[in-house]
Amino acid sequence: MRVGVLTGGGDCPGLNAVIRGVVRKSAAQHGFEVIGFRDGWRGPLEGLTMPLGVEQCRGILPRGGTILGSSRTNPFAVPDGVERIVANLAAAGVDALVAIGGEDTLGVATRLAEAGVQVVGVPKTIDNDLSGTDFTFGFDTAVNIATEAIDRLHTTAESHHRVLVVEVMGRHAGWIALHAGIAGGASEVLIPEVPFDIEAVCAHVEARFRSEYAPVVVVSEGAVPADGSGMTLVTGEKDAFGHVRLGGIGDRLAGEIESRTGKEARAVVLGHVQRGGTPTAFDRWLATRFGLHAADAVAEGDFGVMVALRGTDIVRVPLAEGTGELKVVSPREFAEAQVFFG
Amino acid sequence: MRVGVLTGGGDCPGLNAVIRGVVRKSAAQHGFEVIGFRDGWRGPLEGLTMPLGVEQCRGILPRGGTILGSSRTNPFAVPDGVERIVANLAAAGVDALVAIGGEDTLGVATRLAEAGVQVVGVPKTIDNDLSGTDFTFGFDTAVNIATEAIDRLHTTAESHHRVLVVEVMGRHAGWIALHAGIAGGASEVLIPEVPFDIEAVCAHVEARFRSEYAPVVVVSEGAVPADGSGMTLVTGEKDAFGHVRLGGIGDRLAGEIESRTGKEARAVVLGHVQRGGTPTAFDRWLATRFGLHAADAVAEGDFGVMVALRGTDIVRVPLAEGTGELKVVSPREFAEAQVFFG
Amino acid sequence: MRVGVLTGGGDCPGLNAVIRGVVRKSAAQHGFEVIGFRDGWRGPLEGLTMPLGVEQCRGILPRGGTILGSSRTNPFAVPDGVERIVANLAAAGVDALVAIGGEDTLGVATRLAEAGVQVVGVPKTIDNDLSGTDFTFGFDTAVNIATEAIDRLHTTAESHHRVLVVEVMGRHAGWIALHAGIAGGASEVLIPEVPFDIEAVCAHVEARFRSEYAPVVVVSEGAVPADGSGMTLVTGEKDAFGHVRLGGIGDRLAGEIESRTGKEARAVVLGHVQRGGTPTAFDRWLATRFGLHAADAVAEGDFGVMVALRGTDIVRVPLAEGTGELKVVSPREFAEAQVFFG
Amino acid sequence: MRVGVLTGGGDCPGLNAVIRGVVRKSAAQHGFEVIGFRDGWRGPLEGLTMPLGVEQCRGILPRGGTILGSSRTNPFAVPDGVERIVANLAAAGVDALVAIGGEDTLGVATRLAEAGVQVVGVPKTIDNDLSGTDFTFGFDTAVNIATEAIDRLHTTAESHHRVLVVEVMGRHAGWIALHAGIAGGASEVLIPEVPFDIEAVCAHVEARFRSEYAPVVVVSEGAVPADGSGMTLVTGEKDAFGHVRLGGIGDRLAGEIESRTGKEARAVVLGHVQRGGTPTAFDRWLATRFGLHAADAVAEGDFGVMVALRGTDIVRVPLAEGTGELKVVSPREFAEAQVFFG
Repeated sequence: MRVGVLTGGGDCPGLNAVIRGVVRKSAAQHGFEVIGFRDGWRGPLEGLTMPLGVEQCRGILPRGGTILGSSRTNPFAVPDGVERIVANLAAAGVDALVAIGGEDTLGVATRLAEAGVQVVGVPKTIDNDLSGTDFTFGFDTAVNIATEAIDRLHTTAESHHRVLVVEVMGRHAGWIALHAGIAGGASEVLIPEVPFDIEAVCAHVEARFRSEYAPVVVVSEGAVPADGSGMTLVTGEKDAFGHVRLGGIGDRLAGEIESRTGKEARAVVLGHVQRGGTPTAFDRWLATRFGLHAADAVAEGDFGVMVALRGTDIVRVPLAEGTGELKVVSPREFAEAQVFFG
Repeated sequence: MRVGVLTGGGDCPGLNAVIRGVVRKSAAQHGFEVIGFRDGWRGPLEGLTMPLGVEQCRGILPRGGTILGSSRTNPFAVPDGVERIVANLAAAGVDALVAIGGEDTLGVATRLAEAGVQVVGVPKTIDNDLSGTDFTFGFDTAVNIATEAIDRLHTTAESHHRVLVVEVMGRHAGWIALHAGIAGGASEVLIPEVPFDIEAVCAHVEARFRSEYAPVVVVSEGAVPADGSGMTLVTGEKDAFGHVRLGGIGDRLAGEIESRTGKEARAVVLGHVQRGGTPTAFDRWLATRFGLHAADAVAEGDFGVMVALRGTDIVRVPLAEGTGELKVVSPREFAEAQVFFG
Repeated sequence: MRVGVLTGGGDCPGLNAVIRGVVRKSAAQHGFEVIGFRDGWRGPLEGLTMPLGVEQCRGILPRGGTILGSSRTNPFAVPDGVERIVANLAAAGVDALVAIGGEDTLGVATRLAEAGVQVVGVPKTIDNDLSGTDFTFGFDTAVNIATEAIDRLHTTAESHHRVLVVEVMGRHAGWIALHAGIAGGASEVLIPEVPFDIEAVCAHVEARFRSEYAPVVVVSEGAVPADGSGMTLVTGEKDAFGHVRLGGIGDRLAGEIESRTGKEARAVVLGHVQRGGTPTAFDRWLATRFGLHAADAVAEGDFGVMVALRGTDIVRVPLAEGTGELKVVSPREFAEAQVFFG
Repeated sequence: MRVGVLTGGGDCPGLNAVIRGVVRKSAAQHGFEVIGFRDGWRGPLEGLTMPLGVEQCRGILPRGGTILGSSRTNPFAVPDGVERIVANLAAAGVDALVAIGGEDTLGVATRLAEAGVQVVGVPKTIDNDLSGTDFTFGFDTAVNIATEAIDRLHTTAESHHRVLVVEVMGRHAGWIALHAGIAGGASEVLIPEVPFDIEAVCAHVEARFRSEYAPVVVVSEGAVPADGSGMTLVTGEKDAFGHVRLGGIGDRLAGEIESRTGKEARAVVLGHVQRGGTPTAFDRWLATRFGLHAADAVAEGDFGVMVALRGTDIVRVPLAEGTGELKVVSPREFAEAQVFFG
């Protein structure tokens, strides 16, 4: 039996650990040959393969990124995409596919499974917003990086009596902001699920200064002001260089706070440092287990599923379940820690 | 209402985050006054208290250790211990107690609850071996420190063609060894739950060298050789200085491997660096939530329970459930990753 | 004898270590009383003092920021500024001042020394661009943070076949970019001292891709394109929010590279995380020694000087020497490592 | 021209950065071919070579250890050792050698240079005890690891009212202990250069507890008690397993302090974690520059020298100068920070 592996979408610490888990388990217990497809769905679409044995996996466990490369290629947006994939898998003698990726990658996997391709999914998102699993790998690394940044910014805020705004990843879900905000002792956490009131934010900033502590505000890149809050956000607006701003809420929020409160405010946009580099121990452990269990699912012929974490167990859930709807922060979860933020 | 807080047993990253969580929630939502008892059960036993308000909790979230101090004092080993505690709580006007600790501390709490003291427990163990909760805070920090050490030792092992043995915490349960061994890419993981065969270990070490990779062996401090394995361990033996060795398996194992295989072997005993210092983001998040929920349990008059993590939820379980039996690594969990170690 | 201490300008990891060094040495060996002036030169200008004994310095060694607060207040820009400082020092019974700061703060110190104030300077700049000293504290911390970020971004660049641009601090001097670029294995380092040719940068980016490696470009915030290079930079231009952009070269450079080469390019602006948080061991060691030696200079009545590092020795140089001209990267120093960047 | 490179003695973070520096500079500017000799002097002695071009150096900059392997082989202890090396260099067409190592490795290089071999040395020691250079690479990494450990142990010491003893590397010189002790805020630093008085140490420990702070004692592995101090150290004594203890002063000191003061004392022996793993930015920068300048020395035909750091410059000194005598902590340097330790 020959198994193909691919990684799609944005990179995420732990991808290499999953790949190694699949390869080592396949080699040692299941007797599969494993090959790699390069650059996400572009690999099977264009027949781009690479050898992927125990040798290729040496030393990759602690390394960020993915040795297979990645892309956002969507075969359903390409004429005859599915047919080409099926043909290329056959040509490469590949019986089953392990697809490691997020909503988009697994969405393609779901439709390919419906088209008869034998596929096992491994959920991946730095944002932790995939349903069906307690956590995704990469998230813990991102939260730790954001928390360390918040730790560092506290001393600057207090030494200069300034507001520090930290923009973290999270377009649709505020998990990184919420966890890092709790862990870093933020004064305020603003997430996409709960549009914020800029006047309330500024009132809180001023209250914080009265108690002699300089505030650190954590904001998800996808957070937006509530209508009628006195701050409007024009989507798609361009910056001074003519580039459409992706995000930009951090800089903007700092500007608003400064002009409304008269307190100096500075923004730090963490950006890509949150998703590169060596994974935390938790992410390596979770990603490795995902890889081991994905190989088992293939060995058992259990296709159309993705592996998932429930408590401390790795389980399998239907692929569609992981991609059906986004896992967002619930009002209850957001309320839980408001005692620190309100 | 007045609530007392104490921390007992070995220190653990996250204790201060729990304390802060109890205090902030009590102050902001429940209107409790909180006071601290110093040095574990010695505090209520001897009436040692300290103020514990929002002010005392400033800046403690990222700090390791416990601002309350700790001890291993057992009031049941002291004449009239329970009576003195009850009297001291009354004298201090304390209506309820939040006890943060491990098997011993919570065991005392269980018996005090049976004696009528209103107590809520918060589970704490670096070793992660308390039943009733998926994880305890401090464990993730310890695993990350051990993993970083393993990362570092790989390059030394390979540069010098040596065996490196890393002794990690875990007297009765191998959780730190297992998680750090998986995350660090160890060649071998030896845990208390599964007595090891020194000859099999040495055979594996030699096989590893044949594939040109120098092995890193992770061993729990409580791991023991199997009877008849050719290596005996005299418990309670004394070292050259007349001190009874606590642990010592790491040094010993390195010696055995070196003399049996002829390969240079060196041991590193991580020791107390695993339990001090700033907690990881996961541990700060978990510990903070434990503190918030413990305050809620007090507010609801739900005593005789401890807070616990199940999946991503904080739940309450009877105190006795958390201390009834140790949570050890099951054969299934140990087998899962043997493909890397065997 | 009573000694005042103040910290001016931007915060910098190690400020608290200097303060502690002055206080501990003064208390233990010289018998001085030390008091703190708050918020840079605003402290002596407005008579804002705080107690500063051994007690206040407990636990501050590893903490970023400054317990004294800081500001950019310039007493020479205030009517009767010098007279007010002299009067306030006299009123507080302060015989000598230790001023910890950068070009601006020490420039004020120099002029106050000329006006008869007994002052010892301690050089401070994250940018390492003060003359008279081999290194300033805070610089090593900033370089390590930038290097760790570059390490992380390499894997993202390679997984996505993207250009990653990292903007680091350095308005007038490229020390952070040069050191972090060397340490992080950057493909290109652009510094204020050497205006860059955007076409050469893009040619290099393309060459790098041909060798299958995705490039990481490190750029100082103060780097500028050479005239006639095909890329113009309007100073003082405003962003979409009406704020004048300070820096912005990172985003802009990524945009230019993307539009000229057709390769995806992303920028990360490290910003304030470079200057907050716990100092590295080198910075704690250097800052502590600066503090100890500043106290000695006061004890010896050697005023109008600043402490400085030469090799491994702490020496004293005239205050004016440290602030006379900026220490920039020389052509020889920049050429040394061009073999990695060209 | 063909240049050989070897790394000898204990591994040290930065070795790979030196190797990469030599290779990149040789390839880009000097047109040399570079080959690697494996495992220190064993490589040229036994003719063990490996290709060492730009390709082999990809990705090695941040990696600890040495891709060339190392050993403590001394060709002067082998019959005809020098002749065999000369013959093997000739057979491999190697015109010049870059030898990266410490006292032993460079001592061999010195004698080979006297025998006519064209050799350039690069100083390497984690202990920083080589003369002729301000710092050696690897030292800064070791000091940072030790400092982080001390940071972590402070909270444990204070939570448990215990003495924590940290044993760090340094057989003959106390540089790591001194720098990490200053940076970590240790209560006491004991180094090989200054035999300690156990009674004075215990008196200081007790004074420290009276001021309510639990002490952290940093001790070099080579520190020894003064004669007549009341504590004797039998060199070469064996432990319970029959192995001669290398070091062991940490455990022993903790035992003595505990029995003399009645305070609980625990030792942590950092060991090999100090010398493995990724180098700090300072060490990568220094090691890279050493490699670049060693290639330049070869290109200029300047043999029998070693590269060295003086201030911020890389200079060349006669090989013998670097190995003639150990650079130890001078009384003046030790006295400088005694205000924290006494």
